[in-house]
Amino acid sequence: MKSICGVEGVTAAGMKEGRYGLALVAASGTAAAVFTSNRVKAAPLILMKERIARGELDGIIVNSGCANAYTGEKGIRDAALMAEIGAGSFRTDPERVGIASTGIIGRYLDLDIIGEQARLVAPRMRQDAAAEEEVARAIMTTDLVEKHALVRGDGFSVGGICKGSGMIAPNMGTMIALLYTDAEVPAGGLQRALRQATRRSFNRVVVDGDMSTNDIAICTATGKAGRFSANAFRSALEECARSLSIQIARDGEGATKLIEMVVRGARTEKGASEIAKTVVGSPLLKAAVYGEDPNWGRVLAAAGRAGVEFDPDRVSLFIGAGEERTPLLERGEIVADLAKAKRAMKGREVLFELDLRQGREEATAWGCDLTEKYVEINGRYTT
Amino acid sequence: MKSICGVEGVTAAGMKEGRYGLALVAASGTAAAVFTSNRVKAAPLILMKERIARGELDGIIVNSGCANAYTGEKGIRDAALMAEIGAGSFRTDPERVGIASTGIIGRYLDLDIIGEQARLVAPRMRQDAAAEEEVARAIMTTDLVEKHALVRGDGFSVGGICKGSGMIAPNMGTMIALLYTDAEVPAGGLQRALRQATRRSFNRVVVDGDMSTNDIAICTATGKAGRFSANAFRSALEECARSLSIQIARDGEGATKLIEMVVRGARTEKGASEIAKTVVGSPLLKAAVYGEDPNWGRVLAAAGRAGVEFDPDRVSLFIGAGEERTPLLERGEIVADLAKAKRAMKGREVLFELDLRQGREEATAWGCDLTEKYVEINGRYTT
Repeated sequence: MKSICGVEGVTAAGMKEGRYGLALVAASGTAAAVFTSNRVKAAPLILMKERIARGELDGIIVNSGCANAYTGEKGIRDAALMAEIGAGSFRTDPERVGIASTGIIGRYLDLDIIGEQARLVAPRMRQDAAAEEEVARAIMTTDLVEKHALVRGDGFSVGGICKGSGMIAPNMGTMIALLYTDAEVPAGGLQRALRQATRRSFNRVVVDGDMSTNDIAICTATGKAGRFSANAFRSALEECARSLSIQIARDGEGATKLIEMVVRGARTEKGASEIAKTVVGSPLLKAAVYGEDPNWGRVLAAAGRAGVEFDPDRVSLFIGAGEERTPLLERGEIVADLAKAKRAMKGREVLFELDLRQGREEATAWGCDLTEKYVEINGRYTT
Repeated sequence: MKSICGVEGVTAAGMKEGRYGLALVAASGTAAAVFTSNRVKAAPLILMKERIARGELDGIIVNSGCANAYTGEKGIRDAALMAEIGAGSFRTDPERVGIASTGIIGRYLDLDIIGEQARLVAPRMRQDAAAEEEVARAIMTTDLVEKHALVRGDGFSVGGICKGSGMIAPNMGTMIALLYTDAEVPAGGLQRALRQATRRSFNRVVVDGDMSTNDIAICTATGKAGRFSANAFRSALEECARSLSIQIARDGEGATKLIEMVVRGARTEKGASEIAKTVVGSPLLKAAVYGEDPNWGRVLAAAGRAGVEFDPDRVSLFIGAGEERTPLLERGEIVADLAKAKRAMKGREVLFELDLRQGREEATAWGCDLTEKYVEINGRYTT
């Protein structure tokens, strides 16, 4: 139990055949969802936006292989039919079924495959570690590893799985996150908590600056563990979402290194977050991290175009964590020991810390390096 | 004479030794400049912003190899000394000398090298094709080809050279453009014309979404050919800048293909331009173009995140030009013949045309594909 099956009231099963995967997760409770801000929204999201308004779900059905995006009226009808297939599996009303899709844009769903897979998967829903692994694998596309998180609060749990490795950008990527808690949380509070956690986690992951038509995070609260303080729940949810976000960045398409960018001393959290996201999204910086090249000018150049006022001659910049931590700039003075900076880039995680020295707010964003492999993966996705 | 030496009143010379290049271009006249909007501005730009205000220049000195960016007070003093070296070469006042630098960020200028190179170059200033080629080569960094343009108006000429292949983004990249005309244009009109031309040309080139600290375009009008209509001059200047912009996109780091994105039927030119730039800047689309993969969903997904309102179910999308032109979407219907679309991606230029069907405005942006070579170049630039 390292993720959703560690939460009381959740059962799950999934399968994958070639490119087509299907996951079923049953959990009755209050529910909330957040969606991509892309103007081109996939059909399942359009339907879900409408249905989540009632704040309750009995289960979620997710398919991979086809995004059901840019599929017009037929796409919406197909999404509704997919919810009906889910309703059959969960023995509930289609209005109480969450749906999500991931895969290629501009193709219609193959409902025969989805129906057939649901028939095979539904009888196998259960609450064990193998079940959550099936679900995590079923929803993967170009992901290389499963992504699980489980946070134990004082008397309750928050667990989640997600997928996502390309088309990841600020404001969500081709990402699906399914989050569960056994805490009892009213739908309105759940929506607010999910929105805040998303802002500080999934929305701060940048793999390639592209933003998906299909991003969705859904949180269901089964209430099996009773009520807890709103703050305790919020921080557990945020921690769970943050863990998943880092896993997404680390598994970025073709990535060999995780980049963590901390911006401190900002006037606003939003300003800090804009700068952090712009830096981790910079193709030049990403390529430099891949090459273990301490070309810190690229951090400054990216920070400078984030649309946030700051005085470049006052900032401090560090690279590396723990013993490897070394200053590059101190209050605008270049103090870089490039050999030491290069050593700080050797590992699987490269940390930059920029202190704007203008206020007390901070934000962290996560990304990954840019490699030849990213190009290879994305030059050949549909073919 | 394919560029600046085709303009009356311009003489030039340049040289390059290893990574260090120096160019001198003498031309007396009214002058205007536009600059990067990056908050981290290189020292030569800070100085130039101040000096161009008087609207007159006698010559421009440009070095490559060191950007003189993020170099604080010393950087500004060095930039002023570089202008003095130029003033010696042009036998004028340092206040009448334009300066620009391109290369690595965070290093101080080597004024000994610049002084020595200027001494060698100054006596060789002349007006022939070899001279403008020297200048174009002297300012190159990771560029593979020289970039020249010459537009013949009715009685006057506009010529330009530029460099730039990486760190190119909306609002200018590591780009230096030197533009000359023999038309007589007052400084105020020159500034307005340059700003408009830049907006529709250099600012619509995206190689990697990064924005340089050093971008600058300077236009000098020698007046040798007399006065002409403002409209005729503006359109010649825009045509010249557009030609250079396309050359920059084509020479994008690691590029094998030029991407041209036309957005029509928009409510505003700005909206059309935002969408066009977002699409040509999408790493996923760029990788798909490299792989000759007609994954048109990526065009829509990128358009959808440009921050511009449009109805994705009404748009039409085409790929290819001339005989290869083939529709992918018609008023929201998928009509793509993928085999034909793939053929339209075989050449060195891939054209997409998106009709939003909401208004009469349009804009074009240019970019290039994303290749393994880009990663290789940028993983090893300082080392």
